[in-house]
Amino acid sequence: MGVVVQNIRRADKAVAEAFADYGVATVHEAQGRKGLMAPTINPIYPGAHISGPAVTVSVPPCDNWMIHVAVEQCQPGDIVVVAPTSYSDAGYFGELLATTLRARGVIGLVIDAGCRDIADLTKIGFPVWAKCASAQGTVKETIGDVNVPVVCAGQLVRPGDVIVADDDGVVVVARKEAADILAKSKAREEREAVSRERYKAGELGIDINKMREPLAAKGLKYVDWQEDDA
Amino acid sequence: MGVVVQNIRRADKAVAEAFADYGVATVHEAQGRKGLMAPTINPIYPGAHISGPAVTVSVPPCDNWMIHVAVEQCQPGDIVVVAPTSYSDAGYFGELLATTLRARGVIGLVIDAGCRDIADLTKIGFPVWAKCASAQGTVKETIGDVNVPVVCAGQLVRPGDVIVADDDGVVVVARKEAADILAKSKAREEREAVSRERYKAGELGIDINKMREPLAAKGLKYVDWQEDDA
Amino acid sequence: MGVVVQNIRRADKAVAEAFADYGVATVHEAQGRKGLMAPTINPIYPGAHISGPAVTVSVPPCDNWMIHVAVEQCQPGDIVVVAPTSYSDAGYFGELLATTLRARGVIGLVIDAGCRDIADLTKIGFPVWAKCASAQGTVKETIGDVNVPVVCAGQLVRPGDVIVADDDGVVVVARKEAADILAKSKAREEREAVSRERYKAGELGIDINKMREPLAAKGLKYVDWQEDDA
Amino acid sequence: MGVVVQNIRRADKAVAEAFADYGVATVHEAQGRKGLMAPTINPIYPGAHISGPAVTVSVPPCDNWMIHVAVEQCQPGDIVVVAPTSYSDAGYFGELLATTLRARGVIGLVIDAGCRDIADLTKIGFPVWAKCASAQGTVKETIGDVNVPVVCAGQLVRPGDVIVADDDGVVVVARKEAADILAKSKAREEREAVSRERYKAGELGIDINKMREPLAAKGLKYVDWQEDDA
Amino acid sequence: MGVVVQNIRRADKAVAEAFADYGVATVHEAQGRKGLMAPTINPIYPGAHISGPAVTVSVPPCDNWMIHVAVEQCQPGDIVVVAPTSYSDAGYFGELLATTLRARGVIGLVIDAGCRDIADLTKIGFPVWAKCASAQGTVKETIGDVNVPVVCAGQLVRPGDVIVADDDGVVVVARKEAADILAKSKAREEREAVSRERYKAGELGIDINKMREPLAAKGLKYVDWQEDDA
Amino acid sequence: MGVVVQNIRRADKAVAEAFADYGVATVHEAQGRKGLMAPTINPIYPGAHISGPAVTVSVPPCDNWMIHVAVEQCQPGDIVVVAPTSYSDAGYFGELLATTLRARGVIGLVIDAGCRDIADLTKIGFPVWAKCASAQGTVKETIGDVNVPVVCAGQLVRPGDVIVADDDGVVVVARKEAADILAKSKAREEREAVSRERYKAGELGIDINKMREPLAAKGLKYVDWQEDDA
Repeated sequence: MGVVVQNIRRADKAVAEAFADYGVATVHEAQGRKGLMAPTINPIYPGAHISGPAVTVSVPPCDNWMIHVAVEQCQPGDIVVVAPTSYSDAGYFGELLATTLRARGVIGLVIDAGCRDIADLTKIGFPVWAKCASAQGTVKETIGDVNVPVVCAGQLVRPGDVIVADDDGVVVVARKEAADILAKSKAREEREAVSRERYKAGELGIDINKMREPLAAKGLKYVDWQEDDA
Repeated sequence: MGVVVQNIRRADKAVAEAFADYGVATVHEAQGRKGLMAPTINPIYPGAHISGPAVTVSVPPCDNWMIHVAVEQCQPGDIVVVAPTSYSDAGYFGELLATTLRARGVIGLVIDAGCRDIADLTKIGFPVWAKCASAQGTVKETIGDVNVPVVCAGQLVRPGDVIVADDDGVVVVARKEAADILAKSKAREEREAVSRERYKAGELGIDINKMREPLAAKGLKYVDWQEDDA
Repeated sequence: MGVVVQNIRRADKAVAEAFADYGVATVHEAQGRKGLMAPTINPIYPGAHISGPAVTVSVPPCDNWMIHVAVEQCQPGDIVVVAPTSYSDAGYFGELLATTLRARGVIGLVIDAGCRDIADLTKIGFPVWAKCASAQGTVKETIGDVNVPVVCAGQLVRPGDVIVADDDGVVVVARKEAADILAKSKAREEREAVSRERYKAGELGIDINKMREPLAAKGLKYVDWQEDDA
Repeated sequence: MGVVVQNIRRADKAVAEAFADYGVATVHEAQGRKGLMAPTINPIYPGAHISGPAVTVSVPPCDNWMIHVAVEQCQPGDIVVVAPTSYSDAGYFGELLATTLRARGVIGLVIDAGCRDIADLTKIGFPVWAKCASAQGTVKETIGDVNVPVVCAGQLVRPGDVIVADDDGVVVVARKEAADILAKSKAREEREAVSRERYKAGELGIDINKMREPLAAKGLKYVDWQEDDA
Repeated sequence: MGVVVQNIRRADKAVAEAFADYGVATVHEAQGRKGLMAPTINPIYPGAHISGPAVTVSVPPCDNWMIHVAVEQCQPGDIVVVAPTSYSDAGYFGELLATTLRARGVIGLVIDAGCRDIADLTKIGFPVWAKCASAQGTVKETIGDVNVPVVCAGQLVRPGDVIVADDDGVVVVARKEAADILAKSKAREEREAVSRERYKAGELGIDINKMREPLAAKGLKYVDWQEDDA
Repeated sequence: MGVVVQNIRRADKAVAEAFADYGVATVHEAQGRKGLMAPTINPIYPGAHISGPAVTVSVPPCDNWMIHVAVEQCQPGDIVVVAPTSYSDAGYFGELLATTLRARGVIGLVIDAGCRDIADLTKIGFPVWAKCASAQGTVKETIGDVNVPVVCAGQLVRPGDVIVADDDGVVVVARKEAADILAKSKAREEREAVSRERYKAGELGIDINKMREPLAAKGLKYVDWQEDDA
């Protein structure tokens, strides 16, 4: 512990930015259902949708010193990912830290703990995905690490990986797989656009996808309602 | 398992629709405090208030195939109720399924599990009451049931029962009792409207309801504050 | 049990009101990190920010009779704090009670339980901080207490103490310490305003606060990223 | 509400008793994975394993009057199932009630709420499956129902249904299906006994069940470990 | 903050010790259903039942320094009550601290956080009531308070108050009320002993307590079961 | 996905086994407070204490097929670590699987989900650390991975890493650091043995560790109790 890794390799900038065109659910499916943070992590206000390379911060319990240390490791477009080393509801992050991160070009933050100054962060439009609102401040006593692999809300995040976050939650895409997963997300989105139009026109998924036969093969039966059913 | 019940009898259409004039809390009181789903079920965006007959779907863990099967059983005005057979935070439902349900006239969905595509569902205005936002998709491997009685968030829901849902949560009204409960909800609302006016005018509930005597009989005492009280 | 304490001494009116200029997080820090209610307590709608003296209500499980009793003990500017004597998710409070409280000048309510009529309370703009939305009503059978010390969401609240509530949660300031803590909150806010400007200008917290030396003393090391780091 | 149903039809006595030879997990599988109560319900002490017909009790919030009412509806071998009409952690049940139930021959109790007198219940060996230990007593003010269908820990229980409970939790078997499910449980147990012996002898499940081919067909690949894998 | 209060007045020794003859549920009822800690607090092993005066410790988040400071304030028969100032699952307390407390005659500990060394504490028989097992250690960086009033698991505990703890949980009795509540606990226990014998003899609670009439007055009806009931 | 990594390198056998002489709390401290799984993971019965190299299994939601696949990758002394790719309370593991694992010499299992057959596993003495008891079985439909890095209860586990588990929970030690951490654990245990003897003899930690001065420097004050303190 006690290491700041500098000059990390980030996912390609254009690729990392392009993920924001796709929802977290789409990206998650596109990469084979992996990398999704736990549903305990939610946006502090609705409507934000961002993507970018991760700068990771491992913080000791109830201590946010390392977030201050991480600021100068950030570049425009980055998303900071903060993982306490033990369960915590404390509010490690607030509007002042957002101000300094924004001055470096950081576009958002993900934290497996609490967030404070919700009203101010909403007003200035700095999106945070957190476990809860919590005004419980933290101390600056113990060191941790910046840009080491961390586990955040159940997912491994390496520095430079792509973070995608929207109202559904947060998904992590490995740096080396980012271009491939972006292409797969685009392809999935295009397929879904076709389905969407057919659905709007009143077609049924079980017809479009020819599911009637496999359903019958599994034993599905259609019966008529009778009063004593209920 | 593996049954789709067709041609269910629904609560009277006019009655089912009229419930949307009354809040979930009012309907719950009007029917003697029963039928309320657990407070873990919340709307994915604020402000929706709907009522209609239930089409019920019992789904296996992490499998949403039966929601697709249920689509053609739906009629305009229906509300789909999805109950997994075991605890789950997965996102069984998203915007594509909402599109196909809406094409059938379905006005909303209640699910004792997660919901994905929150931003899109908010944009198109398809209200969902769910346990959490979750981008965790599901598979289509195992069959379940449509229009059988299900337990959703702690309440028994029979196909054709009336669902009422607003920002407070979700309440179920039995099909056969719907007309009676609607009348009682209306009566309750009217009584409350009278109380509301008297409250606004500054009258006190304990005077209006003549509670001073019973309170005293229970032993309630009024004393003056003293510094050492605190 | 069964006591209504009248004519409580409230925190100074001007002081109590002035706290609404400062966020809950700021006040909590200013008084040495105490008095913060658990992060399970959240506003029913975003954007409210109030402060005022507490009128406290201790209610039996699933019984809201004492909130009715408390109404006539309230004065303009008060905030009602409701603490059930055992864990509860029930909806003890709704729009009708808000109407009668508002008629007395009460500006908001904090409850360690559920709240109902969320949509109506949002519409009329009566802010409530609660554990959850719950349409589960309560009875009026058993007496409790008004204006005795209560424990609400983990914090002791004495009648007349100052309550400050915003989107971050709720903090309690002891009546006797209110003027002192208000001054400290103001001072803290002013210091933070200076930091904010320097952060906006691109200065780093670890430079402003001369943290590089103590960090090195704790053993913090800077290393360059290498492919096999990840 | 307010109904006591007498002279219910119970599942066949021999059948109901015989279920205690099979674990909850086995019975749950044997009936097609339905009827399992939520894993929030656990035994108050380890090692009990019982089965018997359900006497159901629907209780108002924090009120255990109806459990007293239910006593005279019980017969030897019965299991009492208590379902509060709203979420509760209160301790509705303790050693005195166990004494009166045992005098009627009741062999255990399931409750979707708290249980008190854990030490005494352990000493006298009256098993209870509950949500938590809680010394929070309840009142006797409001009536509920006995022997109506209830929802307990997410499952519908009808009076006379078979309850099976062990260290894994609680499963409900419908009265009319009991004999069939008992036979299926026995058959399953016998199949598992064969597998157990083969497993003990060192055979592998993927060989016994000829899974190597379907696994390969799904795309499973075997590779050798390399240092940089980790 | 930062105060150690010495020479506190404890509840009378004989009274404090005598409470261990009565269960937590009995004491809680005897004092009018107040003082019960939340059911999230449980014994780390079953079977312990203790009572004694509280030495209170308010600890900063993830910091157990003040428990060490508290040791010399303890006397034989004391029970230490530890309340973190914010939510925490960390393991503030383990076998080494138990060893030094036991050397002072302390008989047990209550903590609204985690406990470590469960196996060793079980072996040496030092009972702890805690929120969870947690090996997550804490630091010794920040001061707190000893023997000030604290809120622990939702209850106010003043130094010298009586703590009673068994398998059901923990209840607090105010020092000044201890003798009175002890007498009431004894009286309650004696009444229950009478009921117990009558229950064992097969009498019913609704007969003993003459409840048939009030139940009928509330509207309770007895009906016979019919097949279509279920 | 869909990879089984064979012939993994395990931590040195003697080292891996020797960790069982040290508690989870000791090992966690010895390696600088990292690697501890969340306190939601607990033993299914008290008293087990094991250590050994990890065989890791990544399982799809509600599907335990890959545990069967993992069996033949196990060696005597191994501990199997199972991580579902999304949150689950299902019972992926039971006594039959334990039988086949034991036939390979596996000494225990850690799973971030539910476990069934608790009574049987207790009887045969196969220890499992799990999130809950759950009889909810799983399917065998979808493939996952064996011996890839997984995140289990918030911690990254690589195949071959050392798992240490006791009544306090589970800690992971990286394979390459195992010998070093074992030595540090031993050293820590020896230091604690010395403290234990001094504590037993009545010495105080604040004297042994010369804390009186630093405490005073932080501002700690000793005052005498006064009646109005409470």
